[in-house]
This record gives sequence, C-alpha cells and structure tokens, in this order.
Amino acid sequence: MSDKVIITETGMRDGLQNQPTQVSTEMKLKIADALVAAGVTHLEATSFVHPKAVPQMADASDVLAGLKSFQDLNVSVLVPNMKGYEKAKAHGIKDVGIVCSTTDAFNGRNLNMTTEQVKVVCTDILKASKEDGINVRVYVSGAFACPYDGKMPVTTAQEMATFFLEAGADSISIADTIGAGNPRQVQQILKPLIENAGADKFNLHLHDTRGQALAMAWAGLELGIRSFDSSVGGLGGCPFAPGASGNVATEDLVYMCEEAGLSTGIDWVKLRDAVKVAEEATGKALGGRIINWMISQEEREAAKKATCV
Amino acid sequence: MSDKVIITETGMRDGLQNQPTQVSTEMKLKIADALVAAGVTHLEATSFVHPKAVPQMADASDVLAGLKSFQDLNVSVLVPNMKGYEKAKAHGIKDVGIVCSTTDAFNGRNLNMTTEQVKVVCTDILKASKEDGINVRVYVSGAFACPYDGKMPVTTAQEMATFFLEAGADSISIADTIGAGNPRQVQQILKPLIENAGADKFNLHLHDTRGQALAMAWAGLELGIRSFDSSVGGLGGCPFAPGASGNVATEDLVYMCEEAGLSTGIDWVKLRDAVKVAEEATGKALGGRIINWMISQEEREAAKKATCV
Repeated sequence: MSDKVIITETGMRDGLQNQPTQVSTEMKLKIADALVAAGVTHLEATSFVHPKAVPQMADASDVLAGLKSFQDLNVSVLVPNMKGYEKAKAHGIKDVGIVCSTTDAFNGRNLNMTTEQVKVVCTDILKASKEDGINVRVYVSGAFACPYDGKMPVTTAQEMATFFLEAGADSISIADTIGAGNPRQVQQILKPLIENAGADKFNLHLHDTRGQALAMAWAGLELGIRSFDSSVGGLGGCPFAPGASGNVATEDLVYMCEEAGLSTGIDWVKLRDAVKVAEEATGKALGGRIINWMISQEEREAAKKATCV
Repeated sequence: MSDKVIITETGMRDGLQNQPTQVSTEMKLKIADALVAAGVTHLEATSFVHPKAVPQMADASDVLAGLKSFQDLNVSVLVPNMKGYEKAKAHGIKDVGIVCSTTDAFNGRNLNMTTEQVKVVCTDILKASKEDGINVRVYVSGAFACPYDGKMPVTTAQEMATFFLEAGADSISIADTIGAGNPRQVQQILKPLIENAGADKFNLHLHDTRGQALAMAWAGLELGIRSFDSSVGGLGGCPFAPGASGNVATEDLVYMCEEAGLSTGIDWVKLRDAVKVAEEATGKALGGRIINWMISQEEREAAKKATCV
C-alpha cells in the first residue's frame, strides 16, 4: 500500500461557495498562492455553475486564467451538467468533478433533477470525457446521510458508485456532504467497493460537522484509500447554520497523515499562511485543531516572556 | 469482540485539577449528578494528592462521601503514592489509578521521583492491593510523548506496560497525557501488548490537544480496546497553555461509539446538562464537537422561527 496521500484542496470551491461575503478573484488567487507555497499539488479551484445559483463562483473563468501561472498544479473543476463540462473543457481543464446525490430530494434541491435524470447527465459527461481525454471524478453526495431523508443504507452509495464505475468514472468520491457519517460506515460502504475495484478508484470527501472527519479519514486510510478532499482552515459551512463546520481542515488531515508516516507533500505549518489569507478573504475565524494548538503554544511562550521581564 | 465500551469519566479529576477557578464540593457533586443522569457508570472522582500541589483536589474526602449516594456508580480515585493509596482504601474505594511517566523528567516534575523510584512505589502499591482486594490501573503517562523529552519510542510504553502487568496491575492505561500522539502510534504501541495480554487489560487515556483523539480512539477500538477515559465537555487543559485542550470530550467519544454500533450506556444528548454544570463550575465555555453542532442546529431553528413571524 502506498505511503503517498493525495489531498485535493477544495477550500476555493466547496469552502467558499456558501460564504456570505463575496470573495474577489484576487483574494482567491492569493489563497491559491499560499496553498501552493505550502505544498498543495491538487486544487479544486472553482465550479461552472449558474452565477445566480452560486454567485461566489461567478468568476470561474478568471480564477482559472489566474491559476495558469502555477505550472505544476493539478487544477480540477466541479461541473453540474454538460454545459459546465463544456466550459471546463474549453478552459483546458483535464480533471472535472461531477455530482450525483443519493436521494431525489437532495438531487432536486442541488440540481433540480431527479436521481435518474442526474445519472443520465453524468453518464453523458462520462461518455464525452473519454473522447476528450478528461478525467472525471463522480461525487456520490450524501453517501452517508441526506439532509432531507436522513441516514442512508450503505447499499445506496455502493450501488451508485458501482453504476458510475461501470459508466466509466475515473474515480468515485464517497462524500459525507453534511458531516453525518462515522468511521464504521466508511468501512461498511468502502470495503466491498475496494475489493471489487481497488482502493485507488476512491476518494473520501469529508465534512467535520460532528467532529468525526479525522476518525473517518483514518478508517479510510486503513482500507487503503489514499485520496482525500479537504479545505484549508476547515473553510466552509452554510451561512444559515451558524457554527456548522466545513470540510475537514487540510492542516488537520495533513498533520495526521504525516505524523502517521504517510506523505502528503504538504507542510501543515506553512498552511497557516493560507489560513490567514482565507480568514482575510472571508472575514471569518478559521483554522483546524492543529492551527489553534499552534496559536495556543505561541500565546503561552508570549505569556512566559511577559512574566520574565 | 464485545460491543460494550466502558467509558471512565475523568472530568472531575483530570478535568478539574488544573482549573484556575476553585470548584466547590457542592458543584463537583452537581456535575456527578448530571453525569450519572446521562448514564455514566464509571467515574474517576478525585485524587489523594497533597492539597498544596493540587488545591482543586483538597476536598477528596468530601467528594467521596458525597458520592456514596450513587449506589451503582463505580468510583475510582487517582493516588500518587502509598499514603494516597491508604487514604483511598480507608474510604472503601475498590478501584485506584496510579501513575508512572515514561521519563525521569516527567516523573520528576509530576511526582518528584525518578522513574525507577516511581516503579518501586507502584510495585509496592500493587502488592498491597492484592491483599486489600483493590483493583489497580497503572497509567503509563506520556506514553506517546513527554512534555520535556518529546516523542517516545513505542518500546518505552510497551516495556513499562509489560513491567506493571507482571507486577500485578489489573489494567494498564496508555496515556497520551499531552495529546501528541497519532492513530498509527496507538497501533504500534498496543498491537504487540494486546497479542500478549489481551485487549481487556488496556485502557486509552487521550487528550485532544491536536485534534487526534477520536481518530486514536477509533484505532484503539479497531484493536479491540473497550475501555477509555474522557472528560465531559472536554474539560481540562493547563491554565498556563491558553487554548490547550483537555481530555477527549465524553460526548464526542460516546457519539462516535454509538453511531458505530458500540454501546456505552451513555446518552450524549443528556451529557449536555453535565456540560452546562461544568461550565457553571469552571466559568469556561466547554463542549465537544457534537455539543457545538447541537447548539448550531438550535440556533438555526431559532433563526428560522424569527424570520417566519
């Protein structure tokens, strides 16, 4: 099993998309700059969605243009439909993500389609991608629980993952969109899938809403999963759910992996600069557990100095 | 492997011992009351240490007297030496914890003894405990890392655990006293020990300083460990390390176990009342991740109602 873990930083897409403060293209590129400086190699940069639905992503083209200077950065983009896919293709993007939720209720809210309709759209994109030489990751959204229908049986995500693998998906992300999963579910959903298709076909997309994300990531690592999404500083969460967390914080995931002898190529200490830029951009206090620990240590040192004068 | 997990609530001892605000015996008993109401069955209630060293534990006798009314509660006490052991025995305590740290530096600071001296003290207590019919758990403190000497080789904790098992310890707690461990270390330290002595000989005592505690607990559960320490609301931390976390929050550990199909006998929703009492007692905002999530949901509901008037 490989000791190399690929972390896709999704703060600029999943992290920003629900932020109430509109973040400028310039600030987004500043965040990217700090992320790359910390060693980030895989970046989900934006999504081609309707600007009325997600105003925060209206500058997708400008963001992608601005990222062209990072030559070694793997830039991926989320697209909700063929129109978005075509835009990503036109920008020369080689990695796209597409989404299918586990329930009609969630697909209806997210994409205004039934699950069957979303499956058709995704299948069409997968067909096109083969001709275009574009890699497609299918996000099985709400794999653990749906915000409307509650906890999901493990077979729902399994069947959907299998369907999309057979339809030609290059990888499948098992997404705990609302952070309602637990590490046992990670095992139950992924073990049979991995036995059939291999661990390298799968990614885990975790939100830390209920504090379970690192334990779930660990369960995934133990199964051989080496691909994870995360967002710098834990950026994310819905503006209508005060206190709700975003994705698992990149720095926390990096810290756990590196401490456990797995290599991410990312320096969690340097991620602090990216957290600062993201805080400036959103006007929100951010930072995973490890950043807050680092700050507490500095405060302690400062207090010591203060009393030693 | 058993589905039953025993959680020893240590908030009243490890959680309170460093709090700058002196907590009254009455408030401590109120915390215990709320804990028992939530289903807590194992409580580390106090420690018999010198009141000058730890003023917060000066009321140990009164706390134990007050807890006598909880007939089904397993009350344990931490003792640093034979004098403390004798006091615990005199109070009719049937479960005591004793501590040996992994380094001379830590033992010196904690107990004013070398590691070899602490081993002798602990061995004497273990001998006495057999005659007295008292169960003794030996805490291998700083098993993952020492606050003075840094990261520990896994063999240090293993050798110490083996030494105390041979000396008659009823159980061994592998303690991440400063929350510096990771789930891989849990496996590395505990797997060989469990193969030799069985999983039921071991307890994990985790602090959540760097956010790794739940992932570490999960790694322990996967090895068959079914005994954990935790503190309500994550109570704990050193007053000289602002922001430093205490033990893993009981409610977070309970939530993870129960969601994963393991039974703790504790209701994490009811633990919120205990968190409130502990907040009142310490004047500190507390609460694990799951409590904060619960609060955020309530705020969201309240906000909805506010706009629907």
